[in-house]
Amino acid sequence: MIRINGDRLLADLRKLASFGAFKTGVDRVALSAADLEARRWLMQRMREAGLEPEMDEVANVYGRHPGTKRALLIGSHTDTVPRGGWLDGALGVMCGVEIARAAMEDGAASPVGIDVASFEDEEGTFLGFLGSRTFCNDLPAAEIDAAKCGELGLRTALAAVAHASNPQRLDPARHLCYLEAHIEQGPRLETAQRRIGIVTAVVGIRRFRIRTRGQADHAGTTPMDNRKDAGAALFRLASRVAQELPRLGGADTLWNIGRIDLRPGAPNVVPSEGEMVLEFRHTDPAVLDEMERHVRDWVEQSSRGLSPPEVEPMARVAPTPLAKDLAAVLAASAKAHGEEPVYMPSGAGHDAMVLGRFIPAAMLFVPSIRGRSHDITEDTAEADIVLGCEVLADAVDRIRARPELASGRA
Amino acid sequence: MIRINGDRLLADLRKLASFGAFKTGVDRVALSAADLEARRWLMQRMREAGLEPEMDEVANVYGRHPGTKRALLIGSHTDTVPRGGWLDGALGVMCGVEIARAAMEDGAASPVGIDVASFEDEEGTFLGFLGSRTFCNDLPAAEIDAAKCGELGLRTALAAVAHASNPQRLDPARHLCYLEAHIEQGPRLETAQRRIGIVTAVVGIRRFRIRTRGQADHAGTTPMDNRKDAGAALFRLASRVAQELPRLGGADTLWNIGRIDLRPGAPNVVPSEGEMVLEFRHTDPAVLDEMERHVRDWVEQSSRGLSPPEVEPMARVAPTPLAKDLAAVLAASAKAHGEEPVYMPSGAGHDAMVLGRFIPAAMLFVPSIRGRSHDITEDTAEADIVLGCEVLADAVDRIRARPELASGRA
Repeated sequence: MIRINGDRLLADLRKLASFGAFKTGVDRVALSAADLEARRWLMQRMREAGLEPEMDEVANVYGRHPGTKRALLIGSHTDTVPRGGWLDGALGVMCGVEIARAAMEDGAASPVGIDVASFEDEEGTFLGFLGSRTFCNDLPAAEIDAAKCGELGLRTALAAVAHASNPQRLDPARHLCYLEAHIEQGPRLETAQRRIGIVTAVVGIRRFRIRTRGQADHAGTTPMDNRKDAGAALFRLASRVAQELPRLGGADTLWNIGRIDLRPGAPNVVPSEGEMVLEFRHTDPAVLDEMERHVRDWVEQSSRGLSPPEVEPMARVAPTPLAKDLAAVLAASAKAHGEEPVYMPSGAGHDAMVLGRFIPAAMLFVPSIRGRSHDITEDTAEADIVLGCEVLADAVDRIRARPELASGRA
Repeated sequence: MIRINGDRLLADLRKLASFGAFKTGVDRVALSAADLEARRWLMQRMREAGLEPEMDEVANVYGRHPGTKRALLIGSHTDTVPRGGWLDGALGVMCGVEIARAAMEDGAASPVGIDVASFEDEEGTFLGFLGSRTFCNDLPAAEIDAAKCGELGLRTALAAVAHASNPQRLDPARHLCYLEAHIEQGPRLETAQRRIGIVTAVVGIRRFRIRTRGQADHAGTTPMDNRKDAGAALFRLASRVAQELPRLGGADTLWNIGRIDLRPGAPNVVPSEGEMVLEFRHTDPAVLDEMERHVRDWVEQSSRGLSPPEVEPMARVAPTPLAKDLAAVLAASAKAHGEEPVYMPSGAGHDAMVLGRFIPAAMLFVPSIRGRSHDITEDTAEADIVLGCEVLADAVDRIRARPELASGRA
C-alpha cells in the first residue's frame, strides 16, 4: 500500500513554484528559461525517486519506472500561462512523482510500474497540448512548423532543447491507463463544500470568429433607419446568444464572448466592421452541433440588411468522455477517505483529453479557493492537496491490484 | 442683384480639391502642408475677388470686404477629415467667395459688405472648431496648449503659421449674421427628392466612456452564474440603449456605439474589464438630460453584481438653435427658385454652431449623394451645388436689402 508523504509533496510543489516565481504565482510559459530549468530540476527529482527520466524533443519530461513492462501513467504539465498560478498542472505532476516515490519506498513488488510525465505547453503558449499530442503521435509536423509565440517560431524555440534520441511514446502494450490530478479551476467544489471532484468528460469546444460588415456613416447625420451598423449587428447577436444558448444546452452550457472590435472605432462614426470571438462548450456533440446551427442562423438574422457576415471556425475540440470504470475506482478511493466525490464535467481542456482518446483516462479535481485559476491568486488548501494525492495513490493501489479495472472490461 | 457664376464656382471647388487630392476625395487635415497650401491659394482667390485676405494665428483665412462698416459673414472650413470628401466645408467657403465676387462684379453699392471665412480644424484633427472658437474669442489658451494630434502638439504645428498681427475677430458692430452652406452629409434630402435643406438647430451631443469591471475567470471552468462578466454587462447595456433610447427622444433620436473593448481579450477568458463609447444627440436639452439620466441607470442595472461601473463624460455639446428669421429668408429664397425646402436639424456639429451662440446664424444644406460624407465617395450633383449657391446669394440680397432680418427683430 502506497503511503504518500504530504509534507514532501508540498515541499516539492513549493520548490517547483520558485522557478519563474511571480508575486504569489508563477510565470513559467512553455520553453521559457524558467520552464526548462524547472524541467531539469524535475528530472533530478525523478531520478532521486528511482524513476529513469528523459526529456524528448518538445521538452516533455518522462520518468520511466524501471524494470516493469507495464505501467500506469500519471501526469500533467509544468508550464503555466503568463502570470499564472503555482498549482495548475504542477499539482498533477508532483502527485505523480510522490506516488511513484512512495511506491518505490514501500518496496512491495508489482508487475505494474508507475511512470510520470510532465507534458509541454498544455497552455498553448505556442501550441496547446504540444507535449501530450507529441507523446500520443497525434501532432502533424506542419502544425509544429506553423506554431509561433509572437514572432518566435516554435521550431526555433525547440532548437535548444537537449533531448533523448529515442524517447518514450504512448505504448498501449506498456501504458494501462492515464491518471491526472488537477485543481478544479472553478468554484463548484468549494460551493458544494466537497473536496474531491471526479471528471466524467472533458467538454468539447467550438470557437468562432464572427465578422460583420456594414457601412461607415456619420453618426450625427445618418438617421438610425438608414444605417448599416456592423456593431449593432454584433450586439443583437450577443443578446440572442445570452437568451437562447442556455435553452439549447441546459444548466451546464458554457459560452464566452472574450473579444470584440469595431472599426473604424471613432465615437461618431457608425461601425463599418465588427469582429467578435464567441465560444461555447458542452459535453454532448449533438448539442454542440445544434448550438452551432443556431449560432449561424442568429449571425445571419442579426446582419440582415448588411453585407453577408462571416463565421470562421477558430477551434473545434470534440468532447472526450473519460473512462467510467476508472472514475468508479477514484470514487471508491475517495469514499475510503471519507469523501463523497462530486461527478462533474471539465470545462477546461487537459492533457487527459488527449491521452483519453488512446487509452483509458481518469481525472481527479481538488478545490480551487474562490474558483480562481490562471492567475497569481490561484490556490488550494494544503490539506486538500494532500488528500487529493492520497485518494489518487489509493486508486493506484486498486488498479495495480486489479489491472483489468483499467481495461474497460472490468 | 447678385448673379453667381456656377461654372466658376465649380472650377474653384475642383481646384481646391486638388490640394491634398486622394483618389476621388481629399486628405487635407488641419495644418497639414496641403491644408496650408490650400489656404494660401484661397487668400489669392479672395484677393482676385476684391476681398482683403489675411491669415490669423490658428490659420483661419478671413476675406474682408473693403470699405464697409457692416458685413454679412459667409463661411465654413477647408480642412478635411483624413481621406475625406471634396465638398464638406469647402462648398460653403467657395460659395462665400463666389457670392462676394459676384456682388463686387454687380457693382451696386451696399452699406453691408460680404466677408468670407475659412475656419481652421473644424474636423478636430487637433481640436474641433479651433478656428471658429478662436474667431469668437471662445477658446481658452489652455485648450490649445493641451491639444495634440498623435504626438504632435497643436502649439508646435501652429508655430509655422505666418499670420496677421491684428486679425479680424467676431465683431457684433460689424457682423450682422453668419451664413453657412454645407452638404447634408446624410440621406434625407435625397430620399425626399428635395434639393434644399434649412437647418433649424444643431443637435447637442453627449458622449460617455463607460467602464465596467468584473473578474477574469476561465471560460471553461466557471459556471455562467458565478461569472462577473464585464463584457456581458456592456452587451446588456447596448441592448437596453437600442430598445429604449428612441422611446425617449422620438424619431429624430440619434445614438452610436462606435467603440468597445474587452480585456484581457482572450477567447477563453471571461472579460474582467469592458469599455464602451456611447454618444447620443438631440436638439432638446431636456431630452438630452432625460437620456443621460436613463443611460446612467441602465449602466448601473447592467453591472449588478460587478464592481461599480464608471460613466465618464467625454463630450457635452449643447444644442444650438439657429435664427428663425434667417431660416425664413432662406426658405423664401429657395421658393423663389422653385424649391420647397426641408426643415431639418443638423446632426453634425458645424462652425455655425459656434457662431450661432454670438450672432444670428443660418445654414443651408444641399443633398449628399447616397448620404455619403467624410469619405472619398462624398459627392453632390453639380446642379445642386450651383442651386445651393444661388439660393444663398438670393438670401444675401434679401438681407442686404433689409438688414433688420438678421437682427432677430424683423
